Amino acid sequence: MKVNEIGEFELIRLLSKTLSEHYTNNELDTIYSEVVGLGDDAAVWDVPAGHQAFTTDTLVNDVHFDLRFINPVDLGWKSMVASQSDIAAMGFRPLFTTVSLGLSGKEEVDLLKDIYKGVADAASQFGGKVVGGDTVKSKTLFISISMLGYDPSDDSQPNPLKRSTAKTGEVVAVTGSLGSSAGGLRILLDKTGTLPQSQQLIESHTRPRPQIDTGVWLAGHGITCAADISDGLIADLGHICEASKVGAEIKIDALPVDADLKSIFPSDWEKLSLSGGEDYQLVFTGAKESIDKAISSLETPVTIIGKITGDYPEIRVLNSQGTQDSYSSSGFDHFKNK
Amino acid sequence: MKVNEIGEFELIRLLSKTLSEHYTNNELDTIYSEVVGLGDDAAVWDVPAGHQAFTTDTLVNDVHFDLRFINPVDLGWKSMVASQSDIAAMGFRPLFTTVSLGLSGKEEVDLLKDIYKGVADAASQFGGKVVGGDTVKSKTLFISISMLGYDPSDDSQPNPLKRSTAKTGEVVAVTGSLGSSAGGLRILLDKTGTLPQSQQLIESHTRPRPQIDTGVWLAGHGITCAADISDGLIADLGHICEASKVGAEIKIDALPVDADLKSIFPSDWEKLSLSGGEDYQLVFTGAKESIDKAISSLETPVTIIGKITGDYPEIRVLNSQGTQDSYSSSGFDHFKNK
Repeated sequence: MKVNEIGEFELIRLLSKTLSEHYTNNELDTIYSEVVGLGDDAAVWDVPAGHQAFTTDTLVNDVHFDLRFINPVDLGWKSMVASQSDIAAMGFRPLFTTVSLGLSGKEEVDLLKDIYKGVADAASQFGGKVVGGDTVKSKTLFISISMLGYDPSDDSQPNPLKRSTAKTGEVVAVTGSLGSSAGGLRILLDKTGTLPQSQQLIESHTRPRPQIDTGVWLAGHGITCAADISDGLIADLGHICEASKVGAEIKIDALPVDADLKSIFPSDWEKLSLSGGEDYQLVFTGAKESIDKAISSLETPVTIIGKITGDYPEIRVLNSQGTQDSYSSSGFDHFKNK
Repeated sequence: MKVNEIGEFELIRLLSKTLSEHYTNNELDTIYSEVVGLGDDAAVWDVPAGHQAFTTDTLVNDVHFDLRFINPVDLGWKSMVASQSDIAAMGFRPLFTTVSLGLSGKEEVDLLKDIYKGVADAASQFGGKVVGGDTVKSKTLFISISMLGYDPSDDSQPNPLKRSTAKTGEVVAVTGSLGSSAGGLRILLDKTGTLPQSQQLIESHTRPRPQIDTGVWLAGHGITCAADISDGLIADLGHICEASKVGAEIKIDALPVDADLKSIFPSDWEKLSLSGGEDYQLVFTGAKESIDKAISSLETPVTIIGKITGDYPEIRVLNSQGTQDSYSSSGFDHFKNK
C-alpha cells in the first residue's frame, strides 16, 4: 500500500498509531504534563522553571542515507539520535520532538511506519517524545527532526556544555570508540563481499547511542566545553577550536579504536577514526584532574587523546610514525566545490 | 556568488549575520534569557514555569512555493507565518524558532540571505527569535521551521485553544477576510495580464499576518475551540469537526470577503473563500454571547459565518441561491491520488 493510495489523513493517523504503540518512556510525563498532544495545530504542555535547549537536524535521501543500505527502522532511530546527541552535547536531556517528513507519495506506507517505529524506539530509550509533525509533498524524501531538551540539574544557574570555553593547556578527551560507524558503513557498502563482518562496527553505524548520561555528568562535574562527534573528530574538535579560538594537538596512538576497525582496515583505520562521521560520541576538554575524575567515575569509556594549544586554528595530529599532519579547524565542508 | 563557491561555514556565518542585523524584537529577552545562542550544538535559555507549545511546518519548492512568483524575502516571511499562525491558533505567542534549509548548493547566496531577511522580519514583528538551524544538501530546495510558543497568561491552569471542544449549537466565527490570499496568488500567476491588480489581495498572499493578539484574547475570554485557516476554510473547519465529532453549517452570504475578490473573481470568489489556503486567519466556535463580545472588543474584524451542528461529519454550505452543498470534514488531501 502506497502513501498516495491512502492519503495524508489516513497516513497521519497510522503514523500517530505507530508512535503511540512503540513509545514506552513516560518518566517525564509527571514533570512535563502534556495538555494537548498530537493532532492539533501545536502540542501544549506544562513546564517548570529551569533551562531548555533547542536543536534541529535534517537527513536527506541520497545525501545522508540510502534506503538500499539502511533499514527504515534504523533510519528513524538514527534521525532521532542526531538530535539527541546535540542535546547530550549541551549536558541536557531530550524532552519533546517534532518530525517533518518530505514524501513523494509513492513510498510504501510500511516503510514510513518502520521509520516511525525507529523514532519511537529511540525516544523510548533516550527521551524526546514526539508531540508534533508535518508530512509534506517533496520529490526528495527527507526527515527533519527538531528537539527540545531540558537541564535535569537542580542548579538555578545553567551550566550547559559549550563549544567556546576550551583553554590552552587543557586536555582533550573523547567517549567510546572513534571511526566505528564509518567502518560499519564501509562493511555495509562492501560490494566485493571480501570484508569480514563485524557486528560491533555495523551496529555502531546502524544503532548509534547518544551520550546523554555522560553529558549530564560532565556538566555537573566541572566540565564546560564539549561537542558531539557527528561529522568526525577533526571536524567537531575543529568546531571547539573555532568557537574557543584555540588550537589542538592529538596523538593517533591515543585514539580509542575498536580492535575490529584496526584489523579489518589496517591501512585506513587512522583516517576513519579521525574523520569518520556519525559516531555520536562526545569530545570535551578540561583540566587533567577533571578528566581523570570522569575516567574513573563514568561507566562509558573516556580516553585522553591530546591537549588544547594556543596555535589557533591549527589541529596537529601526531601519527604513529612520529610525523605530524596539520588541519585547519574550519574542517569539512558539505557544499564547497572541491 | 553561489553557495558551493563559499561553502557551508561561510554560508552559516552570513545567514547568522543577516538574522542578527534584521532581528529587532527583544522584548522577551528579559523573561527568556538566552544562555547559548546560534552556533553551538543547541541553543540554551532560561525558562520560567508556565505552558509551552511546539509546532513545525515545512515548505517545499515547486509544491508550496515557486520562486518565479514569490520574492525570497516574502518566502522567508511566509515560512515563519505558517508556524506563528499555528502558535496563534493555540492562544499562545511565538518564542523561539529553528530553521532547516535544504539546498542543492547551486543557489545564489543573496537568495538565501533574502529568505533569512524575511524570516527575521516576521520574527521581529510577531516573535519567534531564530536560535538554531541546519543547512543540508538536497536536490529539492525546502525550508523547515520549528517553533516553540509560550502561554502569556498568568493563569496557573493552561487554557489553550483546541480543535476538539466545539459543541452543537455553538456559533462559528472567523477573523479577517477569506480567500484573499488565493485571489492574490491568482493575480500573481495571471499570464494573460487581464486581471486587475489588487494590492490588497496580493499582499494578503505575499505578506500574511498571524492572528496572535486575537488568539491570546480568545483564550483569555472563554473561547476554547479554534484552528488557523492555512488549508482553506472547509479543510480547517473540517479539522475542528473531525476532532470534536460535530458537523457545521455555514452561509456563503455571511462570509467576510474582500470587495476586490468579489469584483475580480465574480464567478470564483465563493470557491476561493471556501477553499483558498494561506489566509492564516482563525476559525473558532463558542456561545453566541462570547463571540459577540469578541466582535465588539477586538480590533481585528470578527464575523459569524454559521453554526456547529450534530451532523458529524457533514459541513453544509448554504449558498446565495438558497441551495446547499455538502462536504465531509475529512477535507482536502495532499497525497491521495485523485
